[in-house]
Amino acid sequence: MYRIGVDLGGTNIAVGLVDENYSLVVKRSTPTRAERHPDEIAADIAMLCERVCEEKGIKVADIANIGVATPGIADCDTGEVVYSCNLPFRKYPLARKVAEKLEICACKVKLANDANAAAWGEAVAGAAKGSSNSVMITLGTGVGGGIIIDNKIYTGFNYAGAELGHIVIEIDGALCGCGRRGCWEAYSSATGLIRMTKEKIEECKAEVRDSIMLQAERISGRTACEAMRAGDAAGKEVYDKYIKYLAAGLANIINIFQPEIISLGGGVSNEGQSLIDALLPLVRGEQYGNDLLDKDKLTDLRIAKLGNDAGIIGAAALA
Amino acid sequence: MYRIGVDLGGTNIAVGLVDENYSLVVKRSTPTRAERHPDEIAADIAMLCERVCEEKGIKVADIANIGVATPGIADCDTGEVVYSCNLPFRKYPLARKVAEKLEICACKVKLANDANAAAWGEAVAGAAKGSSNSVMITLGTGVGGGIIIDNKIYTGFNYAGAELGHIVIEIDGALCGCGRRGCWEAYSSATGLIRMTKEKIEECKAEVRDSIMLQAERISGRTACEAMRAGDAAGKEVYDKYIKYLAAGLANIINIFQPEIISLGGGVSNEGQSLIDALLPLVRGEQYGNDLLDKDKLTDLRIAKLGNDAGIIGAAALA
Repeated sequence: MYRIGVDLGGTNIAVGLVDENYSLVVKRSTPTRAERHPDEIAADIAMLCERVCEEKGIKVADIANIGVATPGIADCDTGEVVYSCNLPFRKYPLARKVAEKLEICACKVKLANDANAAAWGEAVAGAAKGSSNSVMITLGTGVGGGIIIDNKIYTGFNYAGAELGHIVIEIDGALCGCGRRGCWEAYSSATGLIRMTKEKIEECKAEVRDSIMLQAERISGRTACEAMRAGDAAGKEVYDKYIKYLAAGLANIINIFQPEIISLGGGVSNEGQSLIDALLPLVRGEQYGNDLLDKDKLTDLRIAKLGNDAGIIGAAALA
Repeated sequence: MYRIGVDLGGTNIAVGLVDENYSLVVKRSTPTRAERHPDEIAADIAMLCERVCEEKGIKVADIANIGVATPGIADCDTGEVVYSCNLPFRKYPLARKVAEKLEICACKVKLANDANAAAWGEAVAGAAKGSSNSVMITLGTGVGGGIIIDNKIYTGFNYAGAELGHIVIEIDGALCGCGRRGCWEAYSSATGLIRMTKEKIEECKAEVRDSIMLQAERISGRTACEAMRAGDAAGKEVYDKYIKYLAAGLANIINIFQPEIISLGGGVSNEGQSLIDALLPLVRGEQYGNDLLDKDKLTDLRIAKLGNDAGIIGAAALA
């Protein structure tokens, strides 16, 4: 039986038809145009659900369930989006609205926070498949977190938990988008990496010190890493600092959860195994009781597998 | 039916008989003398179990179960103490050894980490009673953590999780007992408070600045607070700094878990409600999405209720 997963983002709505093995069979998307009324966004979600079914020649009524991954706080009991920073939702009954458009029972539409859905996707069909306890960290514009405990998404009693990017790791440190200072996100997101890269470039200018990063036309999350690979000392300093903060935050996550697996997703994780290789010695050195545990009792650090489809697949697997 | 709870510490072994309402009926203790062979410690635990039963006129065989709270990593499946920093246990089968001495089935003896057992005690019979998701933070020599999720102790897959004192909150900060720099424990334990008090006293001396703390014969966790209450500016600076770090760490815990209740135990929590009153504005200001959640959806911060008996009661309630 097929399921539908919806990844509702600030930029695009992506909807996928997923089979019983959690493989993505059809995927379609449309711009979110977040300035619209929520009802219009809900209507577009329903429209895409119908379209992916049509393309496979099945009826929406035959779908096992529809899951929607949304930014912000999603109340899984009521099917309401309590709040979302990128979308105009305030206590909006998204599950009911989508169900009404599709003329199905609202009980068939489930909501989850997008980072939680991605973590669930990796747990059922990706890098954390086969484990009961895992954590996914998404290194993108922000640092997102999703926690899986006993094969369930952990959200806290108010569905607002797992904001793992907003653990302060440097008191009075860099300003975070959330308004707090020193959050992990301010250092370990792609945004944090770009900020540290720009700071180093300014430092090089001030010290009349040479760096190939001075020639970069546009500073991205890759600038420092590419410069380092070309033998640039300033680039290596930025990358080493980035790895240091990321490793410290990951050691925090291990000391808190001791999960079987931590998977790393988001743009920065495209560095792949070299990222894991750079992180692992620092993480092991910092985690509590590293030398007391048998090797098979140490958290495994992995690159996430599902890429941008993690949210769709996790949402589809919600029921 | 009665249960027995054992709180095995580096200094004392305390054993209590607990009734069906989780009230402590009889309590006896003996020095641990941690330098002894583990078998001798296990024998003393068994001896105290027999004694508390005798005093109530019941037989050990009639006890529902015995729970042992131990420092370090306790494997709840095998009944082994994997490791303990204060005791000579290395993969020691404590549950089986105690059961053998008492001639009962090893299945009746359960182990838990001491901070986890205390959190469980507060959840079943103390400050977090009636909640399904809570966190207990113990502010003593160290900062201990216990996490209750869905009415169960959360330990991680290897029983080594919930080391909440070992979340780095200031990169490259003060050296922690665990070897890492900048752990929450290095700031928010009584030990951290004493260190900050001593540092301030040295600063006052260097600046030829007056403070009543300069007259203190012995520096304790209360020195700064008492000085502040007497109108001492340097004492207030220390206390404010202590509260700032403690609040930052508690906001981290909320952003991670969004538990219904956080209870604060350990020596520092003897400050009582004035501690909560000092912390709460800072915690609310720093926690993620504070202004988006209804008031009844905000984590409640409370002083723990069971004091030194939390470990015994939580251990007794393990089965």
